[in-house]
This record gives sequence, structure tokens and C-alpha cells, in this order.
Amino acid sequence: MDAATQLPTVGMIGAGQLARMTHQAAIALGQSLKVLAADPAESAAAVATATVLGDYRDVEDLRGFAKGCTVVTFDHEHVPQDALRALVAEGVDVQPRPEALLYAQDKHAMRTRLTALGLPQPRWASVDSIADVEAFGLPCVLKAATGGYDGKGVWMCDTPADAEAVLASGLRLIAEERMALQRELAIQIARSPSGETAAYPVVETVQTGGICTEVIAPAPHLDPDTAAEATRIAAAVATELGVVGMLAVELFQTSHGLFVNELAMRAHNSGHWTIEGAETSQFEQHLRAVLDYPLGSTATAAPYTVMANVLGGEPGGPRLDERLQHLLAEDPAAHVHLYGKAVRPGRKIGHVTVRGDDPALLRHRALRAAKWLQEGE
Amino acid sequence: MDAATQLPTVGMIGAGQLARMTHQAAIALGQSLKVLAADPAESAAAVATATVLGDYRDVEDLRGFAKGCTVVTFDHEHVPQDALRALVAEGVDVQPRPEALLYAQDKHAMRTRLTALGLPQPRWASVDSIADVEAFGLPCVLKAATGGYDGKGVWMCDTPADAEAVLASGLRLIAEERMALQRELAIQIARSPSGETAAYPVVETVQTGGICTEVIAPAPHLDPDTAAEATRIAAAVATELGVVGMLAVELFQTSHGLFVNELAMRAHNSGHWTIEGAETSQFEQHLRAVLDYPLGSTATAAPYTVMANVLGGEPGGPRLDERLQHLLAEDPAAHVHLYGKAVRPGRKIGHVTVRGDDPALLRHRALRAAKWLQEGE
Repeated sequence: MDAATQLPTVGMIGAGQLARMTHQAAIALGQSLKVLAADPAESAAAVATATVLGDYRDVEDLRGFAKGCTVVTFDHEHVPQDALRALVAEGVDVQPRPEALLYAQDKHAMRTRLTALGLPQPRWASVDSIADVEAFGLPCVLKAATGGYDGKGVWMCDTPADAEAVLASGLRLIAEERMALQRELAIQIARSPSGETAAYPVVETVQTGGICTEVIAPAPHLDPDTAAEATRIAAAVATELGVVGMLAVELFQTSHGLFVNELAMRAHNSGHWTIEGAETSQFEQHLRAVLDYPLGSTATAAPYTVMANVLGGEPGGPRLDERLQHLLAEDPAAHVHLYGKAVRPGRKIGHVTVRGDDPALLRHRALRAAKWLQEGE
Repeated sequence: MDAATQLPTVGMIGAGQLARMTHQAAIALGQSLKVLAADPAESAAAVATATVLGDYRDVEDLRGFAKGCTVVTFDHEHVPQDALRALVAEGVDVQPRPEALLYAQDKHAMRTRLTALGLPQPRWASVDSIADVEAFGLPCVLKAATGGYDGKGVWMCDTPADAEAVLASGLRLIAEERMALQRELAIQIARSPSGETAAYPVVETVQTGGICTEVIAPAPHLDPDTAAEATRIAAAVATELGVVGMLAVELFQTSHGLFVNELAMRAHNSGHWTIEGAETSQFEQHLRAVLDYPLGSTATAAPYTVMANVLGGEPGGPRLDERLQHLLAEDPAAHVHLYGKAVRPGRKIGHVTVRGDDPALLRHRALRAAKWLQEGE
């Protein structure tokens, strides 16, 4: 609690773009987000005054960081369980709790728990030999149980040789069936310690090379039963796993229904559309949830909102500043979010959001805007 | 220009709530606003990393601050002309230029210039004696030519004794007629150095004790001719005075038409509604204008948007944190903006914005929210 402003201080471990956008939301709530960064040039550290430099794997650094925080939360799920449990034991309010966060850190634990809950998910198994993989059946997807993101830690395996190459890494792995998808969906839901939940509309996500490149909110032509099923799944995961803060549930839509793909217990790329597209952004909602404030309205602010990610392009061409000006001239109602990161090919450096009535037109606008920022043409 | 991000750096002189909200907008554009603050606890300094401490009246401090800024602009209009002209002479890109800003700093200069332009304004005169005031006619309004804000520097005078008390201050004064108002209106318009302009819809403002307490956007029941006249006046002021950045024109609506009350060449309280109520907020628009970026869409994002200011209440009662939680529970779709300032009675400490279809209902919601934050009941 800040004595002058009579308002709390949220500490966020990690200083990427999620922390950066959370800082924007914290400012509106009268706060200044405190972030733990590895480097002062990181996306959030560059814009937030209360930056502490440290290593998120080091319990001493975490302990120092947590001092003066009303609650400590996350920009990523890579903080070791041991360290988090030590903080909790010392009385730090960590949200989500390590017992819940585990299921976003460890896919084996997540699949095991969701199986026990009877929630729909792809057929899966723990594998640690080629015999296990062949018993499971090829083709399949191999996933690192921990540490993956944005398509990293995920391998499409068609042959035993593919699987052997992955097994050679020595990583702890699970195998999942490759499902015939109609499309991918995602849903954000917030949950507070007092048990209040607030779900956003189900969105369609488009992945390219394992990276989410586009989100359409709400998912066009989604029948009400499927939307209700997605919301039921998200609420069950949030409540049964004891999630606090934002939960993103990525789903496969198939001719046999919905299946849980991935979970994230934080603001998530598939929820960036909420900044302009919903009454309450996922970033403000996460702050409200971890502080046990009442949750905000998840009503949409426009019939449709489309977000497209901007990835770093190849070197050369116009400077980012020039690309931005071109885009702003082309589409005066585009909402640009740049993350203040140095441009590297394939790195998420920003996103663009547009809202309106016609999802096809919005997708065209969003992709054109993202392409211009990315490729400068 | 920041080498790593390939994006510009805007410097803002002053670190109040306008700079704070501009920092939020700068973050989205990939930047981090650089602010000149008197104290690290100021509203924007508390949330923006690139804070320089200094005195906005000291040309040396300004010179140091301007180093590395792509453009220098303002959170307030109190920077001395001499200092600004010195910076410009040294090649600093100051926007708006001091020659334009003068008309927001000096009401005598503003009234003289608007008279020359033939724009409608209250009858006025320069006064420096009781004889001048009596020749002008009582009752009247006396205004300090410079330095006023939020009702400060404005005196309603009914009698010679009232006027003598003001004259005794030794301030340079102008007298203005007291008009019979139907209501007060305001309009925001942005102008860039290349001459592009973008006007927002005309809004109704409600003043209490000289402080704007409420803004309804767009102004309900405004006939199209009057709206067009307001836009014409704003565009004329912006263009003829060479304004760059946001211009707010406060207007009196009377049975004889519109009259210019005040000008501000910066983001303005009467434009806070644009954060949620328009496609481009006045804060992003100001950045775009001073950087000579293409201007953003000023289309509304909802049929009506209402903003209510939150003033600091009397000491005692629930902490601000508790008041906030109560409000968030009562109205989950209210957009709260707290400025991170210590609470003092009558001080602007935040605002609340709601959007929807029915302006009467929105006013009720916004005022109830502001009252709760202010009075804790």
C-alpha cells in the first residue's frame, strides 16, 4: 500500500510486453507496476519507474523484489516452483498460487489434472523412449513438458526418426494426438481469490508457424452451444485449479467438439484484443483479480475486434518509425501497440487492433497493417 | 530517435496527470515519454522512467531536458516565452511554437488576436483601474491575463468594491462581459506541422465552482449548424494561430450563438472522454500531431460517453483503495483513471468515464462513481 496514494502496489515478475501493457493499466488504477527485469532495456522496464533488476530464478532476488508489494504476479510462467513456495511460506501474496501455476508450467501435470477432471483434451501420454512413442502412435505431436512457448518446445513428428531426434534432447516429453482441426479458439477468464469469475467472449485464433498471428473477437459463426461449452471448460479449469488472475484456455475446435490445447495463467496474446474491444482489458482485469478487486465488465465494445501480431521483419527497408507513419496514414482508426523492443526477425514486436462490423474487412485491415510494420511494404 | 527501437522520443514539460496519460499513449506507440518534473512524486514522474527533475522556468534546465528529444511539448502553459524562444533559436523542435502558445498563456493577447480574426467572443477590454472597469460596466468578469487555471485567476465582480479588491492584486487584468449562458461546450481539434487537422465532436461541459466536473460527448441535442460553427471556430483558431498538437476551445452557448471562452494548447480535461469514447485518444493524438505523424480517427467509439472528474474529498472516511473497490463493484463497466496524487480537498485526483446509449443514465452513473471516490459514500 502506497502511503501517499492509499493504493496498492502490484509486483510483476518479468518485464516483457505483457508487463508493459499491464503497466499502462496500472497507471489508470492509480498505481505504478513494479517489475522484475533482467535488463533495463526490457519492454516493461523501459517504461515503468519501479523496475528492480534481478533473476527470476533466484529466490534472494525474488525476496527483495517482493518487499513492499501488495501482491506478486507474473508476466511469464518460468519462475521455479521452489522459489515461489519459499515466498509463499514467508507470507508473500503470490497470485496465482504456485499450486495453480504448476499446471501452466508443466504440461504433464496439466494433462494429468484435466484428465482427472474429465475435461476434453487430445489423447496424450507421457513418453521417454521411441518405444513409448511408437506405442502411442505416429504421427503425433511431441511437447516438452516445461519451458515451451510460441511454438518452441513443440514438434510435429511423422516418423520414428523425427521422434528420435526430439527424444535425443533429453527433455521430459509428452505425446499428443494430432487432431483434425476446424479451427483454433481461445477464451480468457478472470478469477479472483474470493472466487468471482468473469469470462470474455470466445475468440478465433490463427497460428502461423506455431505463433499466434491473428485473433478475431468474437469467433465468427460460433454456435451458442459451442460458445457455452468453451465457457464451461474455462470456468471449470479456473475454479478446479484455483487460478487467480487471467486464465487463457486455447482450444481446438473439431467435428467432435472442443479439446483443450494449452493453458496460460496470465494475460495472453489471444486477449490483446480486449484493450480496445472490451469494456475491461485483460491487463486491468488481471490486476483487479490478483488484488481481489471486483472484476470488470467483459462486454464487447464493438461488434467485432481483430488483432494481428507484428513480428520483426528482415533487416533493411524503412525504419520502424517510417513504417508506422505509413500505416497511420493508411488506416487512421488502427490501434497500434509497439513493445519498444529491438527488431529481430520473427520476434513479436507489437500488435495492431481494429474494430468494426465486418470481420472479413477487419482481418484485411489488421493483416495489412501488421504486414506493413513487419515488411515495410 | 531511439537507436534500438527506431522510434522518436517526445519530451513533455510538466509531469501532471496530462503527462501521465500521455505516457500511457506513448507506450502504445513504442515510446517512453520523457517528462520534466519538479518532484519525483508528481503524477507522471511516478510512472515514467525517463523523468528529468528541473524547473520549467529555468532555461538551463530546459536545455538539458531537451537534449535527445525529437520534439518538446507541454503538460501546462506556464513555461516562459523567453525560455522557449531561446530553445527554438538553438534548434529545439518545440511544439506548439512559442508564437502560438502565447495565445494560450496570455488572455489579453488571445482576445486581441481573436478580435482581429473576427471570431465570436464575449465583449472584453483591458483594464487597469476602477475607472476602466466602471467604463466597461459592472457586473463583469475580471480575469488575470496570465497564470490562471481551473477557476483560479477569474473573479465574478458585481460591485466596484469587488473589482477594487481584484485590482489591488496588481495583476494584469482583462474584463469580460458576463453572458447569459445556455450551457458550456468544448471542442478538441488536433493540428500537425504539415497543416493536417482533425476535430472531435463538440461536447457539453459542466462546471462547478470554476472547475470542469463533467463532460458529455457528444453534446446532447446540439443542432448540426451549431456543431458546424464550433468546428469552424476551432479550425480557424488552430490554423490562424498556427497551433500544433491538441487545441481545446471552450465555448459559451447562448441564445445569440457561440462565443469563445478559453483556449488550451495541450490535452485538456474536456477531452479525457476520448480515451474510451473515440478511436484515438487526445493523448495519442497530441503525440501524433507534435511528431507530424498522420492524425488518428476522431470517430466516436460509443453513441455517448460521459466523464466525471474526481476531486479530493475531505479527510476521513474510507481509504481511496476501499472507495475504488466499492465503485468497481457497483459499476463493473466504469473506466477509472486515478492520477496517483495525494488526496487534498478540491484537487483533481482522477476521473471516471462511462459509455453507452442514454446520456442521462450515463451522467447518473459517472456522477455517482465520482461522488463515491470523492466522498466515500
